[in-house]
This record gives sequence, structure tokens and C-alpha cells, in this order.
Amino acid sequence: MNGAEALLRTLVDSGVDVCFANPGTSEMQLVSAIGQSDAMRPILCLFEGVVTGAADGYARMADKPAATLLHLGSGISNAMANLHNAKRARVPLVNIVGDHATYHQQYDAPLTADVPARARICSAWSRVAESADDLSVSGAQAVQAAMQGAGAIATVIVPANHAWDEAKEAAPALAASQLQLAAEEAIATVADALGNGKRTAILLGGRALREHNLAAAGRIAAASGATLLCETFPARLQRGAGRVPVQRVPYFGEQVAELLQPFEQLILVGSAAPVSFFAYPGKPSWLTPESCDIHTLASVDEDINTALLALADKIDAPATPTTLVQRNQPTSPSGPLTPMAIGETLSALLPQHCIVSDEGATCGLSIYAATERATAHDWLTLTGGAIGQGLPLSLGAAIACPNRKVVALQADGSGMYTIQALWTMAREQTDVTIVLLNNRSYAILNIELARVGAGEPNAKTLSMLDLSNPDMSFVDMARGMGVAATRAENAEEFHQQFATAMTTKRPQLIEAMVSQ
Amino acid sequence: MNGAEALLRTLVDSGVDVCFANPGTSEMQLVSAIGQSDAMRPILCLFEGVVTGAADGYARMADKPAATLLHLGSGISNAMANLHNAKRARVPLVNIVGDHATYHQQYDAPLTADVPARARICSAWSRVAESADDLSVSGAQAVQAAMQGAGAIATVIVPANHAWDEAKEAAPALAASQLQLAAEEAIATVADALGNGKRTAILLGGRALREHNLAAAGRIAAASGATLLCETFPARLQRGAGRVPVQRVPYFGEQVAELLQPFEQLILVGSAAPVSFFAYPGKPSWLTPESCDIHTLASVDEDINTALLALADKIDAPATPTTLVQRNQPTSPSGPLTPMAIGETLSALLPQHCIVSDEGATCGLSIYAATERATAHDWLTLTGGAIGQGLPLSLGAAIACPNRKVVALQADGSGMYTIQALWTMAREQTDVTIVLLNNRSYAILNIELARVGAGEPNAKTLSMLDLSNPDMSFVDMARGMGVAATRAENAEEFHQQFATAMTTKRPQLIEAMVSQ
Repeated sequence: MNGAEALLRTLVDSGVDVCFANPGTSEMQLVSAIGQSDAMRPILCLFEGVVTGAADGYARMADKPAATLLHLGSGISNAMANLHNAKRARVPLVNIVGDHATYHQQYDAPLTADVPARARICSAWSRVAESADDLSVSGAQAVQAAMQGAGAIATVIVPANHAWDEAKEAAPALAASQLQLAAEEAIATVADALGNGKRTAILLGGRALREHNLAAAGRIAAASGATLLCETFPARLQRGAGRVPVQRVPYFGEQVAELLQPFEQLILVGSAAPVSFFAYPGKPSWLTPESCDIHTLASVDEDINTALLALADKIDAPATPTTLVQRNQPTSPSGPLTPMAIGETLSALLPQHCIVSDEGATCGLSIYAATERATAHDWLTLTGGAIGQGLPLSLGAAIACPNRKVVALQADGSGMYTIQALWTMAREQTDVTIVLLNNRSYAILNIELARVGAGEPNAKTLSMLDLSNPDMSFVDMARGMGVAATRAENAEEFHQQFATAMTTKRPQLIEAMVSQ
Repeated sequence: MNGAEALLRTLVDSGVDVCFANPGTSEMQLVSAIGQSDAMRPILCLFEGVVTGAADGYARMADKPAATLLHLGSGISNAMANLHNAKRARVPLVNIVGDHATYHQQYDAPLTADVPARARICSAWSRVAESADDLSVSGAQAVQAAMQGAGAIATVIVPANHAWDEAKEAAPALAASQLQLAAEEAIATVADALGNGKRTAILLGGRALREHNLAAAGRIAAASGATLLCETFPARLQRGAGRVPVQRVPYFGEQVAELLQPFEQLILVGSAAPVSFFAYPGKPSWLTPESCDIHTLASVDEDINTALLALADKIDAPATPTTLVQRNQPTSPSGPLTPMAIGETLSALLPQHCIVSDEGATCGLSIYAATERATAHDWLTLTGGAIGQGLPLSLGAAIACPNRKVVALQADGSGMYTIQALWTMAREQTDVTIVLLNNRSYAILNIELARVGAGEPNAKTLSMLDLSNPDMSFVDMARGMGVAATRAENAEEFHQQFATAMTTKRPQLIEAMVSQ
């Protein structure tokens, strides 16, 4: 057994059985070890941003880490943007990054780069394996580190000689640590606050947005009259008919400030207080009114479920929430293909327990609003703002949940960042329907250009935010990667194509030619 | 005048007039400043790896830096792999990276990341601008830093408030530093060595591979009988008919060792001694025979031209080289579309002074060999081994040299890394012909798998290196991004399509269905 084989065995024993991969020469022993393993499923991706975005989507749905397999400093560099999003999503994720053999690094061969420095930047925990025997030990530690709190990014760097040298044994899996309980005092303080008569909002984030925790929060709201809010970019929100409704904090700071203005106290559960996404001249970054008290019930890494249940008990909340989302009357829109029309179609046709990956940017916000009363589903968003997450995320979610339909709402500009994800969807025959929102523009930047006070834009300035010239055809690109694709020019066409997609289990893309 | 406008003015005054860009909200003042400037040409790219790869290609041909415009930590993360290649190519390059406003960073908004740490990893020089006035000062320093030696990567980080705050004036351009002369002693030592009767190779790299320096090296070879070698992955080699021939050091270590075995001394000019690209079990990393003396005439950052001319003088070399490449008899191949057949077509049809960007991987090596006696042209290679360089590099080269045909030899697997480059080629109507070498495999990895001794691969292992299932159509993908495309299934079809491409000035892709 060589070091690579020992590492593989330990990862599998630790519960890791999916590996999103883009390997190179220095990882060939790891590739071979995966090839020999019955238990590890390799998923080849054509770019490392797809690898890590998929691992993020997988972890959001599976609540356990996938492994990634990355090639040297360039591989982890390419992986970094979606690792940023994964970090903000607080998911568990284990990177296995190859490096040159220890004795080879001194020669400064062309691909030599500082892999540990890159790993430190994008990982909560990272470590260079010190020997063939240490490789599987590092693997066990990485899985344990990834499962700390809500989840974290752990990276093992594998010098090639440690992968091919002989290892004595595979290290045993390490015990998963328990979630830390929220402080009794925090729960008592919040319980008192909920009784003080002040107008209260409870801002939910992280795992507080799972169905059972929303139910607990709904009971607390019923007892206290508090308003339930949801963080702006949740990793995974369980929403739709039969679930406790939450109001999502808007994207633009002015709207956030307006939303928060009436409240005298804000209770945080698995979330931080809202801040402006970007800074703008003369506008505040901090959005909670100064007069508003802020209390934290539980941090994102603490045991949110126990804290919510204890709080509900303490304030004698009813056994069930009093307000649940009612299913809307499905409609079939017609006319121009506006984001709202797309939202109406989705609201009518999304199948129960489907998963929506939303990197719809400007369009996504309208579609989100229009699907509030759809059947129960999970909504995944761009947690860290690094675009190019949506397609990989939907791929990973589909791998984690092969029996659930996945719908990827994908803006055109950000979709182009990791368009290679389509090929892996075709290869793995994942059940993903991509709604490619083609408005031929970085539309959000046209809005932001005005908001940052950058003056009246001229044609040259606007051309830098424009995605026409030439117009792209995502239908052609999808077909080029083996994904069936159609184009919808109006609401009727879209509705019909989306209806067909919802009853066909395969990867497929609908290019929605959006009218604003 | 705000800070962004001052920076723009200083960059233009410093000779920087092309900016490859993928901006976001925090860079809107910079976008607006570019929009207002008549002198700066913005080139929108759909991914940051395209931005920096294009800036590398531009610099290799223009011998001066382009600017890049990148969005926050995620932008520079995505830019990093091609910055690694640019670093290895020793080109000048100036990154302008937006960051959150200084006062906003404390709030840990979703996109907040450690931009300076990322910049340090991929730059020889980096600095956070400290005020609106300091912004243009930083810009001037960055251009100066980028022009040090052969060229370096310089990065200015721009907190958004410094871009929008008022600036008093635009800092003046700084004087470019002169190339450092090689030590007199080094020249004398090498002159002596060339007279000692030992079998000698001169290994040329960096700017030693430009035509005028090759001519000087050819004179030295004529006088001394030394063999001229070229580094394995040159940034820019001027080759073909009428130029001094050099033998390129092979990729595989065994072949390198065999090539070097006869030599008793090795003279380095702008290159390091060859080392193995990767480590392999039981194979050496260092490839120069122990008995071979190594002397350095000039480092890659020194004045190679003056050193070569001084050496030629010192050894009384003839006024001109005695050996020049003779144009071959053009042929028109037929039958299966092998890499050699593609090479024959290129050798026959490459137009004078065209530029070849070679990320052809396994196929590229054969094509290189077959084009040795083509008409004079420039050959650019994957300097740092981080795949996904070829298409962006050809884009940037075409921007630098609008009157020269650019041919991109692009392997399928690495082409998918930065396939978005096609769109910018169409948008800018660059005269690039892409020869997409489709062998439906990471072919090099199939070779390396055996070389690293990873055992007999099974079907599962091989599937991780396979790019069929589904087969990709680069014709469809190219058309989806506005680039005209055709497919060639045999040598005759390829020859005819390539001939047409050489007489049509526009971006176009030929998908070459390669038989091995």
C-alpha cells in the first residue's frame, strides 16, 4: 500500500466517498488509488473552479464533505474563488492538493509555486503531509477539521513522493466533534428581550434556515410577535408551501436600512448583522439603526437547533408555528419573457423538493420573490459574491441528491466564468435544468455604476459592461458540451420548455432571452 | 479629477495604453475613467484567467506592460494561474486590483478577502494605494517595477474610496531602469571556456531567443563550434527560415539527459540549467551530467544583447552566423490527420512573421518539429505549465500586433480552461486562427501515468483522463461565442481549411480531429 492508497482508504473510512477532480502528473498515484477503490466516486471537471463549486453544492445538500483533487499551485489558484464562496457558505470541504516531490521543489521547475501559502489563504485548516505514513493521518485530520462547527475548508498538501512511497497502514477515521451549545446566558438574555415589548426582528442564517429550525423559529415568532428575517445570501434556505415564511434581507443597503428601521432589537441566529455588500460614496456600510439593540442567540458554528428549541421552551411558545406558507394558485404567464414571468412559471412548475441554485443576479431577485409560494424546495445562493458559482453548485447538488430535480438559475455573465460545468453535467447525466438568463449584459453593473456616483457613463464606459457584440448563444455552447438545449423568446415558449424539462430526467439548458 | 482618473492619466503617461478588464462594482470609477480616456483601450474579457493570459501575450510581443483590471480577491484569485505563467515568461505586467473602501473592510461583507496576501503570492512588486493622491504614484511605481530586468509582475491594490476621492494631480511617469550589464568577469570566463577545447552547449532563454540575439549566438557558435540549445518552454522564440537554428531542450527528462550527455560544459544565457518538469520515482530531477561544467554568461534579467556581442568580439567571431535555417519545400499532406500532418500544413502555409501560440501539449511537440523550416515566425509557449494559457495568450498577441496573423495551437483539455477567450477574439475581431487539437483526452496524462509508476491503470482510472463521454464540439462552442468554425477530419480537409484561414483576416477556429 502506498501513501495515496492509504489516504484513499482513510478518506472513505471517514465518510468521504465523492471526489471532484482535475488531476495532473503529480497526482497520478492518487488517481490510480481512486481507480482501484470501489467506494470513491471520481467526478472529472474541466476546470478547478468547477471542482470546488461542485464540492460546495454537494456539501450544502449532503452535510458532509466531498474531496477535491487539485493539481499544484495553479490548481488551487483556480479553485480559490469558489472556495471563497464555500467558506462563506460554511460548508465542510476537503481539498487534496498535489505538490512536487519534496526533493524536487529546490529545482524550481516551471510549475513550482508556493502551494502552502495558497492553501492558507483559502482554508480554515491546512497542512503539508510529512511522509507516506503521515498522508492518511492528515486525511483523517482534514475530515475532522472540515466538520468543525457548521463546516470548514480543510486542505491536505500531498508531495508526490509521499503518495508513491510505501505506507505502513491507513490511519483510522477521527471522531467528529459535537456542535458547541450556545451559552445558557445568551438564551436567557434573548428570552428576556423577547418579553420586553420592543419591536423585534430575528435574523436567521446558516442552518437556522433548515425546515426544522425554521419551525422552531416560527414557534418563537408566534409567541413573541417577532419578525423573521433571512440573511441576504443563504447557503441553503428551505422554503415554499408548508414552511415557515421568512423575509429575505435585500441586496441594496438603502432597502436593508428601510427594512430594519422599525426595529428596536435584532436577534441574530446563525448570522451576522447586515452590512452593505459594497461601499458607496456617502452611504453607510453598517445598516442596523444605532438605536437598535443586537443580541446573538447562537453563532453559525453553534448548535442552532438546541438553542432555538430551548428558547421556544423558555418563552412558552406554542408547539407548532402559526404561520406557514400557503401554496399559490399556479399560473401560466404570457407575453414578454420578464424575470417575473420566469418566476411565475417556476412557481407553477417547480417539482416538490427540488433544489434551486440561484446565480441569477438581477433576474434572480425577481424570480426569488415570485416563487415564495411554490411547492417546498431548497434555495441555494451565491454566498460569497465570487461569480461563477451557480453551474458548479448545481452540479454538486445533483450529485448529492440524485433523486431530486435541480434547477440552476444562471445569469449570462457569471455563467461564462465556469461554463465548463455543463460538460460534467452531461458526463454524469445529472438531472439539472439550467435556466440561462440571457440579458446580454452585466446588468447589475449598470445599476451599480449609477449607485457609486461614477458620473454619467459614455458609450465607451457602457461597452465595458455589455455582453452583446457578439451575442452569445448558450444553446450552441451547451450542445458543444453534450447538453440538450433550447431557446425561449417569450413567456409561452419558456413555460412550455420548462414544463417539458420538469418531466425529463437529464441535463438540459433553456436559454431564456430575457426582456427587462 | 478623482483618484481613478489620476491613475489612468499616469498609466497612459507611462506608456500603458491597453487594459484587459473584468471589473465589478468596486472598480466602477476606474471603468468610468477608462471610458473618459481617449488613450486607453479597454478589452473586456469574460474571466480573469483570460485577462492575465492576454496581458502576458501582449507583453511578449509589445515588450511593454498592458494593465489588467481585476475585481477584489476573487478576481485576482482567478487571475493567478496565468500570472504564474507570465511570471515564468518574465514579462512586464501591471495589475490594477480593486478592493473594498478602506473603512468598509472591517465589516467583513461577503466579498471581503485578503487581497494583499493574494497579490504578494503572484507579484514581484505589490502595494496598496494609501490615498487618492497615492493612487497615481503607485501606478507610476508599478510600471517602473514591471519594467525591471526582463519584466516583472507589479500589482496596485485600489481601495474604492481612493478611486472616488479627489486627487490633486496625476503623478509623473518614472524613468525606466536600464538593463543591468552582465559582469565583465562572466564574459571573460565564458570566452576562455569556449577556447578550452571542451564539447560545449550554449543554452539560450528569455530574450536571447530574439532574432538579433540569436544572430550573435550564431556568430559565437560559428567561431567556437558550440551547439546552440533553446530552453524547453520559451516565452518567445524567433525561428524559421533565415534565422539561426537552435535545438529545443525536450520535455521528458530522459531525453534531456541524453541530449546533454555529450557535453563537457554548458553556457547559460538567459536560462537556468534544465531540470525535470516533474519528479518521477527513481529518476533524477537534475539533468546536467555531473562532469559538465556550468557557466553563466548573463541572467534572464541582464543585458543579454550586450553580453553576447561582447563575447562574440572577444572570441573574434565572424560578422555573421554561418548557419541559417533554409526554407523547406512546402508539402500538402494527405490521409489521417496526425500532428505531423498538421505540422506539414503549417510549415507550408504559415505566413511570414506570423505568431504561433503553442498550447498544443502532446500534439504541439510534433508540430513544433515539423515547422522548423517554415517561413520566419515567432513561437510562444506555455512557460509555467499552468494550462489554460494558449487562447488568452493568442488574444493578447493579436492585440499587440494587429497586422500579424496569429495561430493558436490549442489542445482540447487545456483549451476548456479559458474557452471564454473566444468571445473576446470575436468582439475585438482579432486575426487569430485557432487550431483546436481535439484528441478527446488529457493525452499527456496517459503518458505520465505510466512514467510515474502508478501501476497498470484500470478502466476507472483511465476514465479520469478521458475527454470523450460526451464528445465535445468546439465548432459549436466557437459559434456560440461568435467565432466562425469548421471541423477537419483528415489531412486534406485540414490543409484546405487552414489555407483559407491564412487568407481571411478574422477570428476563426478549425477543430482538428486528431489521429495519433
